[in-house]
Amino acid sequence: MSTAETCSAARLAQPTLATLTAARKNAWLHRLANTLSELTPAIIEANSLDVAAASASSAATRDRLTLTAARLEALGRGLREIAALPDPIGEVENQVLRPNGLRIGRMRIPLGVVAMIFESRPNIVVDAAALCLKSGNAVILKGGKEAAHTNAALVGAVHAALRAEGLPVGLVGHLERREDVDELLRQTQTVDLVIPRGGEGLIRYVTENSRIPVVQHFKGNCHCYVDAGADLDMAENIVVNGKTQRPGVCNALETLLVHEQEAAALLPRLARALQGVELRGCERTAEHIKVVPATEDDWHTEYLDLILAIRVVPSFEAALDHIRRYGSNHTEAIVTRDYARANAFVREVGSSCVAVNASTRFNDGGELGLGAEIGISTSKLHAYGPMGLRELTTQKWVIYGEGQVRA
Amino acid sequence: MSTAETCSAARLAQPTLATLTAARKNAWLHRLANTLSELTPAIIEANSLDVAAASASSAATRDRLTLTAARLEALGRGLREIAALPDPIGEVENQVLRPNGLRIGRMRIPLGVVAMIFESRPNIVVDAAALCLKSGNAVILKGGKEAAHTNAALVGAVHAALRAEGLPVGLVGHLERREDVDELLRQTQTVDLVIPRGGEGLIRYVTENSRIPVVQHFKGNCHCYVDAGADLDMAENIVVNGKTQRPGVCNALETLLVHEQEAAALLPRLARALQGVELRGCERTAEHIKVVPATEDDWHTEYLDLILAIRVVPSFEAALDHIRRYGSNHTEAIVTRDYARANAFVREVGSSCVAVNASTRFNDGGELGLGAEIGISTSKLHAYGPMGLRELTTQKWVIYGEGQVRA
Repeated sequence: MSTAETCSAARLAQPTLATLTAARKNAWLHRLANTLSELTPAIIEANSLDVAAASASSAATRDRLTLTAARLEALGRGLREIAALPDPIGEVENQVLRPNGLRIGRMRIPLGVVAMIFESRPNIVVDAAALCLKSGNAVILKGGKEAAHTNAALVGAVHAALRAEGLPVGLVGHLERREDVDELLRQTQTVDLVIPRGGEGLIRYVTENSRIPVVQHFKGNCHCYVDAGADLDMAENIVVNGKTQRPGVCNALETLLVHEQEAAALLPRLARALQGVELRGCERTAEHIKVVPATEDDWHTEYLDLILAIRVVPSFEAALDHIRRYGSNHTEAIVTRDYARANAFVREVGSSCVAVNASTRFNDGGELGLGAEIGISTSKLHAYGPMGLRELTTQKWVIYGEGQVRA
Repeated sequence: MSTAETCSAARLAQPTLATLTAARKNAWLHRLANTLSELTPAIIEANSLDVAAASASSAATRDRLTLTAARLEALGRGLREIAALPDPIGEVENQVLRPNGLRIGRMRIPLGVVAMIFESRPNIVVDAAALCLKSGNAVILKGGKEAAHTNAALVGAVHAALRAEGLPVGLVGHLERREDVDELLRQTQTVDLVIPRGGEGLIRYVTENSRIPVVQHFKGNCHCYVDAGADLDMAENIVVNGKTQRPGVCNALETLLVHEQEAAALLPRLARALQGVELRGCERTAEHIKVVPATEDDWHTEYLDLILAIRVVPSFEAALDHIRRYGSNHTEAIVTRDYARANAFVREVGSSCVAVNASTRFNDGGELGLGAEIGISTSKLHAYGPMGLRELTTQKWVIYGEGQVRA
């Protein structure tokens, strides 16, 4: 099938799904979990081809690519968790009785057809199919060629589970060639939303070339500001957690801003607590601890690694200025005891998640109570922050009347 | 100033507005109402130049262009109504206490900088500036050259009111040249959202050329389906209201679908009630009343005029099929006494507004309880249906902790 045909098939299949009961969608999710378990040997064999072809890549890249029996089991558990989440479709919000007797509300409906364009992590095949279909959307998947065998095996499992549940396989379209991307980005009649996930290059390419609305899941250059008078035990915990608990993810901490009043007390203990982390500091940081001198580039960089940029700032306002200039609208935290500055930070920092006295690592669908997420949006339109099932839907207006007309 | 400079000035001015109290924003709205009233003679003089230049245009076009003292007074009343609406900014929804003690909620924030690209109606200058600024957004206005003098006079009033309230005039940017549009559509660093309002050509051009997210306010090819067994008095009222109460607007009725069982009883009385309306019917319609034969084009057309397309359908499903094929996702209504078909219509029609036993004319911000609207979105992303103050905002996540870190 051509790209246009794959998208048309998804568009045609989607209305059936839009009104399917949650019970049937959940049955498919459980079936898929079982199918993954049954097909584990075949999937791991396909995956071994991709991993072998990536022998020249970094250990981190190969790790992202690799599926093991344990990882497939975790994917299956994730599917059962998505099945357990409430179905957002059909829910009516804010139903009111208008003065003219009309009952008016907003009903949650699927977006329609969602296209995911992603790199490396093949688990996205399963996660995206599960979240899109549970929220009533058909999905078009375009993964990277580095995971081609694994992606094909996982799509095979997804299709097998659809067939077994009597659902059209066209609900999950699969594109495999690089040139399909350009064609896909022009399918304005059949695709409602494009979500790119991967490196900066991929996201820029999709944003610049898509005729379809794009929700960007862009970089997380996350900041933590330690205020004058902050609890330094708390600050140390939050910084260490943000930087080291899982450095390769988008909500990991990248730049620490320290009020000058706390620099002498905080920086030496942090340097001890962050052993194994490369510290890149401004000149004033270097007065207190041994650091690699930070350059302008460091303030812009999402390391996704055990590297932390540190800047000593003269004031709360200087911290806000730094965040406005270098932040990526992802996640920023403040550690403070001051009521007014806590409130000002929450009000004035425009990122998708703003935390007071908590780790940046909490900007995550599971931690924020959404359940599984398809990614974290740094686009302000439609969804800002983690995108779970609800963020893959929209609302239409519903009016129940008894013959009312406009005067 | 260049287009890029105008957009940068708006971006720089917007953060002040984002945290401004509702009281100060409302003071500006009242001031603007007074300013319009004071400047009425000058605005009408500017307007007369545009109206004179449009002498070759249709009466409808000249009417859309014309401002009178009464219309300026109505604009002023609209401003005071917007001042009276609740301010959505800062509102926190769904705040919950998580098991780990974190308090988590979603705080409503402005989108940032909104660009309005519009044609003919100069009142959009005032409405858009009011709605955008009340919702904390800066706005860039690009009107059509047919209203150039009027737009400039109205922007002058808006700027005068900003100055009088000590607010930066950069909050409302004004672009006047055709070539500014292309430049504007590339300002991804400073503009968050583009809203085109006007003819199909303008909307297509903006959608195809924008690198910035676009919310389309596209055409309303609205349908009413009269079901078998419907109350025919009610059907007549709803059809007459939908078609004739204000035929030039996007929620006016364009195509009537009649179940074959009601055709003989309903069509002749409708033909009498719709005197002065040109009826274009299918062959089966022509068996009952005198009509212009409808062509395939008629099913696609948004007349915005006293013309109604009529089709007799053999079943409820045939009506749904017609709507799926020709509908524009704007507004559709059903007139029925049947519980199951009322529910099925609401569930299966995906338009931004679906009405049971009510006129299509109710798809309107005021009628749906939003207050003033900036337009009616037929895009599913971000806002679907009327866009009021809330639909010009987004939400960020706010986390209040006491030192929590992720395990």
